[in-house]
Amino acid sequence: MKRKGEARERILEAGARIVHRQGFQAAGLADILEQAQVPKGSFYFYFKSKEEFGLALIDHYAGLFLSKFSEFSNEADLPYAKRLKRFLWWQSGDFIRAGYRGGCPFGNLALEMADVNEPFREKLKTVFAALKAGLVGLLESAQAAGEVRADLEAGEAADFILNAWEGTLLEMKVSRSPAPRRVFERMVFERLLAA
Amino acid sequence: MKRKGEARERILEAGARIVHRQGFQAAGLADILEQAQVPKGSFYFYFKSKEEFGLALIDHYAGLFLSKFSEFSNEADLPYAKRLKRFLWWQSGDFIRAGYRGGCPFGNLALEMADVNEPFREKLKTVFAALKAGLVGLLESAQAAGEVRADLEAGEAADFILNAWEGTLLEMKVSRSPAPRRVFERMVFERLLAA
Repeated sequence: MKRKGEARERILEAGARIVHRQGFQAAGLADILEQAQVPKGSFYFYFKSKEEFGLALIDHYAGLFLSKFSEFSNEADLPYAKRLKRFLWWQSGDFIRAGYRGGCPFGNLALEMADVNEPFREKLKTVFAALKAGLVGLLESAQAAGEVRADLEAGEAADFILNAWEGTLLEMKVSRSPAPRRVFERMVFERLLAA
Repeated sequence: MKRKGEARERILEAGARIVHRQGFQAAGLADILEQAQVPKGSFYFYFKSKEEFGLALIDHYAGLFLSKFSEFSNEADLPYAKRLKRFLWWQSGDFIRAGYRGGCPFGNLALEMADVNEPFREKLKTVFAALKAGLVGLLESAQAAGEVRADLEAGEAADFILNAWEGTLLEMKVSRSPAPRRVFERMVFERLLAA
């Protein structure tokens, strides 16, 4: 079963790249299998359906993001707010280097799939909730350390920051400019959160 | 030419509804023409290509949004910040009543099309700039009236508020809940802008 696991992983990695660029519905399985170097026709050995593959893909992206979030969250020599910023700048750095193509895989899939596929919507909701929970923890630590104003409700602030971030990535995609990120930085870190 | 103009308008109105629900690439011309009650096969009499139709559709949405924005902006008996809120709640009210399907036509088209179609991206950029310009004017009036803190740069605040709003609509789509709008309200109107 080891080889099966490896090929499945390669399909998810190739799929993550292709779906990120083309969207889920437009992404072709033949293309993904070719890039994964897995024989054509063997897709259904690894996934019951394209939908099951898509849901596994969200888990794949979520695993990557949550592990990066945890990595940045634990940078003990940095102020808490700075750890959050580093995480967001990690994501947007890749996006900028890709010429503002792609963007947030969760935001993209949400807009593409939430209306038409209920299991996608449910899974994306879970992922946003997990990211938000991580962010709440970081904001509460930042408040306890006096870095962030204490009278903000951390749950609401986390929710709002994630949403503002999704919109910021969207405007960066349309404008192909880093300016929206600078505006986000000033509004969130220098205004909203400032102690 | 009057009849031509009327049929073109009906195509845009039917197209606006269908593209808003299904996305641009998935929307079928036959379906749009049928709903517009325009004979099948006559599409290319009104538009050179599906792309030209899509660009006209963005103008159609933009005309609707900018005229609504202007209407709310001029409600002279309301505080300026309240006029902005009325405009945003008008948009999200329709979205909520539609069961959180659809959302912002500009945000949806941006995520669907900005990477793959340069004229779409350019036109969407222009629309976001026009909405932002309207919002800047409202915020500056609100600042002059002492309703909004004077030390905010209105251009940056307008940009950030539009982006946070796009992200808020996105989370409402995923969660099918009005909660993100309440969070937006508290963070933007009670925190960021509060004088």
